[in-house]
Amino acid sequence: MTKFAARVEITHLDGIADPQGATIERALPVLGYANVSQVHVGKSIRLVIDATDAGAARVEVLEMCDRLLANPVIEAYEVEITELSGSSA
Amino acid sequence: MTKFAARVEITHLDGIADPQGATIERALPVLGYANVSQVHVGKSIRLVIDATDAGAARVEVLEMCDRLLANPVIEAYEVEITELSGSSA
Repeated sequence: MTKFAARVEITHLDGIADPQGATIERALPVLGYANVSQVHVGKSIRLVIDATDAGAARVEVLEMCDRLLANPVIEAYEVEITELSGSSA
Repeated sequence: MTKFAARVEITHLDGIADPQGATIERALPVLGYANVSQVHVGKSIRLVIDATDAGAARVEVLEMCDRLLANPVIEAYEVEITELSGSSA
């Protein structure tokens, strides 16, 4: 088994309200940043997974997203898998 | 001015409690994923910024992190800047 680092980014689906993003977007001009738009706030989850290869790691992490990490009704997710060096056994 | 997409990842500093990560790490084995460790939950912020170049955009976004987006006492942040194609004016 090899260790892989997974980085999951969970964002709101289009059309789902993002009150944190809206609040930041309203606050930034007050602080002098008038040149910012389209602020979206999501979650970032990092974890380490043991798997036979990167493909298997990705399949398992996508399944975890569907079952626990994200709410697929209102959230989208992206997964990046990176092999951790010197971890094969 | 050119438009740049910024992706900010906000994580807990080492040694700061991450109760969301700990909860996910306890829940995953119950769902059958015993091969996962080091779960960390952070925030992901995406925004679009107008700036003269990528360096200026990065400097401004780092400043926003310090002043509003993150709490530097307990959080670390990473910024990725990507130029949005076809946006120069």
